[in-house]
Amino acid sequence: MPVSAPSTHSPSGRPRARGLGLPLPGTPGPLNAITDVPGVTVGTTTLSDDAVPSIRTGVTAILPRPAADLLSPVWAGRFTMNGNGEMTGTHWIDESGWFTGPVTLTNTLSLGVAHHATNRWMIDRFRPRLEEKGLWLLPVAAETYDGWLNDIYGQHVTEAHVLSAIDGAAGGPVPEGSVGGGTGMICYEFKGGTGTASRRLTAAGQEITVGALVQANHGLRPWLTVCGRPVGAEMPGATVWTREKGSIIAVIATDAPLLPIQLQRLARRAAIGIGRGGTPSGNNSGDIFLAFSTANDPGPLPEPRRLSLEAIGNDRLDAIFMAVVEAVEEAVLNAMLAADPCTGHMGRHVAAIDGARLAELVRR
Amino acid sequence: MPVSAPSTHSPSGRPRARGLGLPLPGTPGPLNAITDVPGVTVGTTTLSDDAVPSIRTGVTAILPRPAADLLSPVWAGRFTMNGNGEMTGTHWIDESGWFTGPVTLTNTLSLGVAHHATNRWMIDRFRPRLEEKGLWLLPVAAETYDGWLNDIYGQHVTEAHVLSAIDGAAGGPVPEGSVGGGTGMICYEFKGGTGTASRRLTAAGQEITVGALVQANHGLRPWLTVCGRPVGAEMPGATVWTREKGSIIAVIATDAPLLPIQLQRLARRAAIGIGRGGTPSGNNSGDIFLAFSTANDPGPLPEPRRLSLEAIGNDRLDAIFMAVVEAVEEAVLNAMLAADPCTGHMGRHVAAIDGARLAELVRR
Amino acid sequence: MPVSAPSTHSPSGRPRARGLGLPLPGTPGPLNAITDVPGVTVGTTTLSDDAVPSIRTGVTAILPRPAADLLSPVWAGRFTMNGNGEMTGTHWIDESGWFTGPVTLTNTLSLGVAHHATNRWMIDRFRPRLEEKGLWLLPVAAETYDGWLNDIYGQHVTEAHVLSAIDGAAGGPVPEGSVGGGTGMICYEFKGGTGTASRRLTAAGQEITVGALVQANHGLRPWLTVCGRPVGAEMPGATVWTREKGSIIAVIATDAPLLPIQLQRLARRAAIGIGRGGTPSGNNSGDIFLAFSTANDPGPLPEPRRLSLEAIGNDRLDAIFMAVVEAVEEAVLNAMLAADPCTGHMGRHVAAIDGARLAELVRR
Amino acid sequence: MPVSAPSTHSPSGRPRARGLGLPLPGTPGPLNAITDVPGVTVGTTTLSDDAVPSIRTGVTAILPRPAADLLSPVWAGRFTMNGNGEMTGTHWIDESGWFTGPVTLTNTLSLGVAHHATNRWMIDRFRPRLEEKGLWLLPVAAETYDGWLNDIYGQHVTEAHVLSAIDGAAGGPVPEGSVGGGTGMICYEFKGGTGTASRRLTAAGQEITVGALVQANHGLRPWLTVCGRPVGAEMPGATVWTREKGSIIAVIATDAPLLPIQLQRLARRAAIGIGRGGTPSGNNSGDIFLAFSTANDPGPLPEPRRLSLEAIGNDRLDAIFMAVVEAVEEAVLNAMLAADPCTGHMGRHVAAIDGARLAELVRR
Repeated sequence: MPVSAPSTHSPSGRPRARGLGLPLPGTPGPLNAITDVPGVTVGTTTLSDDAVPSIRTGVTAILPRPAADLLSPVWAGRFTMNGNGEMTGTHWIDESGWFTGPVTLTNTLSLGVAHHATNRWMIDRFRPRLEEKGLWLLPVAAETYDGWLNDIYGQHVTEAHVLSAIDGAAGGPVPEGSVGGGTGMICYEFKGGTGTASRRLTAAGQEITVGALVQANHGLRPWLTVCGRPVGAEMPGATVWTREKGSIIAVIATDAPLLPIQLQRLARRAAIGIGRGGTPSGNNSGDIFLAFSTANDPGPLPEPRRLSLEAIGNDRLDAIFMAVVEAVEEAVLNAMLAADPCTGHMGRHVAAIDGARLAELVRR
Repeated sequence: MPVSAPSTHSPSGRPRARGLGLPLPGTPGPLNAITDVPGVTVGTTTLSDDAVPSIRTGVTAILPRPAADLLSPVWAGRFTMNGNGEMTGTHWIDESGWFTGPVTLTNTLSLGVAHHATNRWMIDRFRPRLEEKGLWLLPVAAETYDGWLNDIYGQHVTEAHVLSAIDGAAGGPVPEGSVGGGTGMICYEFKGGTGTASRRLTAAGQEITVGALVQANHGLRPWLTVCGRPVGAEMPGATVWTREKGSIIAVIATDAPLLPIQLQRLARRAAIGIGRGGTPSGNNSGDIFLAFSTANDPGPLPEPRRLSLEAIGNDRLDAIFMAVVEAVEEAVLNAMLAADPCTGHMGRHVAAIDGARLAELVRR
Repeated sequence: MPVSAPSTHSPSGRPRARGLGLPLPGTPGPLNAITDVPGVTVGTTTLSDDAVPSIRTGVTAILPRPAADLLSPVWAGRFTMNGNGEMTGTHWIDESGWFTGPVTLTNTLSLGVAHHATNRWMIDRFRPRLEEKGLWLLPVAAETYDGWLNDIYGQHVTEAHVLSAIDGAAGGPVPEGSVGGGTGMICYEFKGGTGTASRRLTAAGQEITVGALVQANHGLRPWLTVCGRPVGAEMPGATVWTREKGSIIAVIATDAPLLPIQLQRLARRAAIGIGRGGTPSGNNSGDIFLAFSTANDPGPLPEPRRLSLEAIGNDRLDAIFMAVVEAVEEAVLNAMLAADPCTGHMGRHVAAIDGARLAELVRR
Repeated sequence: MPVSAPSTHSPSGRPRARGLGLPLPGTPGPLNAITDVPGVTVGTTTLSDDAVPSIRTGVTAILPRPAADLLSPVWAGRFTMNGNGEMTGTHWIDESGWFTGPVTLTNTLSLGVAHHATNRWMIDRFRPRLEEKGLWLLPVAAETYDGWLNDIYGQHVTEAHVLSAIDGAAGGPVPEGSVGGGTGMICYEFKGGTGTASRRLTAAGQEITVGALVQANHGLRPWLTVCGRPVGAEMPGATVWTREKGSIIAVIATDAPLLPIQLQRLARRAAIGIGRGGTPSGNNSGDIFLAFSTANDPGPLPEPRRLSLEAIGNDRLDAIFMAVVEAVEEAVLNAMLAADPCTGHMGRHVAAIDGARLAELVRR
């Protein structure tokens, strides 16, 4: 019963933003997911058992290359719109324009475990070459805060959870909502979580894909804006905060050949993408964005003596910039729409957004 | 006949965005202008004479303090969302968190004249103190490109034009549209120009004002979004570009006491403000934003031996961030709505946006 | 037998740079250590047992305030001269200008554990307030690579090691050389490690202290320059690398009242400090610098509604800048001079610098 | 009588740092000048006439490509070690990694004229293509303050002076000392000015050249360090300032193929280069550095649809970093050694450094 195409329905069968008929711009890839970018895979470990409601957390892993190729850098750039959060690896991304290994997303107080386990995973897989070449690792681990629904001070994520997320990374439809690192997330005071979207477009004569994956945990209800409509004001019930407590991490993947300095530009556009959802990028939010390109593979570390990069000219980037904006905006919606309501730590409850009601408000 | 309150109608009597009844959020100050911030004044010199249609340019000057006090720094921060443009003075703003003197806005190839003349004006006014203390000046001059409507290669702005804009700075309603540095501007392929807006709000128990002034010269028609509605698609006629050529400079003023590092945060929010209008911050656009605070006046240069700053706590900034977003978004609309259609250099013509039609599209 | 004053001899009794009579500029504090800054303490856990020579690593903890006050931010700034390394917490330091909690330094692949355990320590100590206020933590953990002497892929640092370093933090003389995070370090191809130094000076009429602590793991022998003399060329034996593999983390502490934007300026001066030692800041080095001030204590989190900061005027900072340069330069020397020769992982050996020979070369 | 090779003697016949036998490291190019980089030329206009001693200023122009090719970008990066100064064009260099046109250096209050005239020069030369393609220009103009020796408030530099410097640009030996923009400069309280140096080296199997040109106007006498010796303390007479008032602009040119992000790294190393001369990068100094590469020429603007860049691998950059450090350090010395003593504005006098005495102090 293939009624639920991945571009319109999440793996759970629930309609995504496009499945609801929201008037979203642009042309997504077949999965409307970051996994539309060839070679990119996603894995999740979810810690959520109604028998132990105080634990609502997890880990998401994004593998920018096939597991066997993860010692080969991907070119990258980052932007921090509001730094109340953490993404490791960015000193080196700023410096060299690349990173290696999986990207992991988890809760704020489990970031250290994610970092540690990512190293472990890389060592286990690449030890001979690491030793022979005397290499080190600077993993990209990022976080958002789930302390409302999750006993975050319990630090329940373990090394095994992280390894499992990395090992489980796969292509195809990406689970959304309350899964992986997104498990305990809250977005515009509705249940938030993991969301993804993609765009296909032609730039400088080349067909390219741009994918975004967000861990959406930001926003106050009154700010919520969907497809330009300030719907938050009309969906007032059951709010959570007096002041925002959250963050959004966005990871942008593309197969477009781009220089590192251009990938910084892509990362910066995620700020406009989240802004379209209504947030002014609040003080308590870690709004940190990473963009990487799988093109121009330099091969496994160490870096070669000489580099050779093709890139799309700057004057042709606007369509790519717009794809980033749109994919990030849509990924946030998908995160919210796929999320189940959740009762967690201390019996706190967060409602899910009502997709049908949302569609109606937008349609008006 | 005071039917046209400055908050709803421009000095020309034309309705501003609020005068059209557009559903804009927030509470503006009495003028809905950057001049709502006490002590801030604006002056313009406009070079636009239908007898010489190839010259469509000018200068806008923003004085952050009364003219007699312009050797006293204002605390400031800047953000460059897309650096295809120029704003001088930013090395020192990044370093020290302040600048002195007028801010000038003009066309790309007249920025040097604006810089030179601003120095001249400061020397003429403050020479004894400059000499006694051995001071130098690092003026803030910014630009956008008006080469479609203006013979920009003719470099028609003179030192006298700049001095006149500075000398003419005044409080009260700010002329909008095709005036000053905004004279030859094009925004979303309609006539653009100078626009302003403001917000009043309470933060940390203090009544404060946030004002924005933009020189709006950016955007492609299909991107145009007003109050969340993608109206550009429905206003297709008479476009100008195949690729964007333009920029937007935004200057944010406030009387809120803020640290320099916090003013950088305000400047960054202008990116979300312009993004709400539909732009992804295109490659050819110099999207450069300056935020300054008139509070914590350290007195005339040289800097005192010790500084003392009050500031609103970071946790209370969200309302201010939102005020920046809203004021910048609205200032762009005001720039477009006040602008007359213009025929300029080489007989090129740019239409003005039809406010009534816009209001109708937004209302639908 | 108090012949070894802490300013001239390390706790091990070995002469420090000043004990050797090297012609170093400036006036150190009584300990010539970061602990000269009131309230700053240092703890170390050293994993180095000749019975298990493959493990040569450890953890250093710097507590910027007394343990009971570590939920009170310290104002801070950072600079990354070369980002081939990691320091967490910097997104928020860049944004807000402060951090809370201990700073930990360890090896590259144990950074995650340091981060995790620092969270653990903060939770254990401050849980009631964290829970009541819904606070999160963004620890500052930094690293350098000790994979030549240490089985770094074994990830031998545990949570207990980190907690022990934090719990053991004390004022007084700071152990230098092959201790704590500095245990397996190599500096200019001599044994490196932990080093510290300080300066006392008067700025804007106020007596202030500047202290530096480095984890020195950088440099090639031919680059080594001491007190301006290119001594490396004359100490050629027993080198280690064909290409540099290392890093230097510098932590600058001061009691001078400074704005966050000024602390960024202090951090930047550490680049000149390390440069005086001969390094051009090589590609493989994570040269990341943190500066914090204990002044202007805003009290325990959450941030107060209003902030009030005193600061020394920018025009009086040069003496402080020079103190940073000098203290960092001297701290590197102290790290090398206190370090014992070491045989570690795979039987690899690194010689200690010969202090007497060095002094002779410098004196010539 | 070719006794004065350009690498050891300045065009005036005076010995440069190498001509004095100072123990400088590295291998310079044949001219030991920025003009050793193929295609790079330098022109100067000097306003210095003992009959009108109050005017001691000028303009230096660096052409990164042959004049006819100046609409072709050069890849570039910049770093601001201390931003008390100005360099225009850096928003776009930060964004895109390139600039076009001449680089001009002049005094602080004439920067606007330099900017304006550079636009004029570009328009005059490239108008047809500018018009056809609708191009704009973002010139790189930088400055240092000469208000001690020059009547800087008189703004004596004219458009003609700037055009003349650009038109006069030539290869071969570069005039040093009190010429061009360096005319009124003061360095470590000796007469400063324009200086240059270069290095030849092999990186990644390729023979490359790195050249530096500085406008050296920074430093207090007690800081002065030459070849590691703190000679300033032993050359106490006739100082100028109680607090530093100056700046240093460094322009680094290379023919090494490098990515923009790598050129940022080169620019950053100039900080270590100036630091070796003794400065801590004082508050009043605009220490702004530009690095560009003539390799990977993308052809005249507009940017092509696709870019293709070769680059030396990051792991091979250390030799290039060291070349930058050394060339900048040596260029400052050359600026001082070539400068005549000067009596200027208000009868103020600045002595020249005594090269023979300096050599003796260094040799001791």
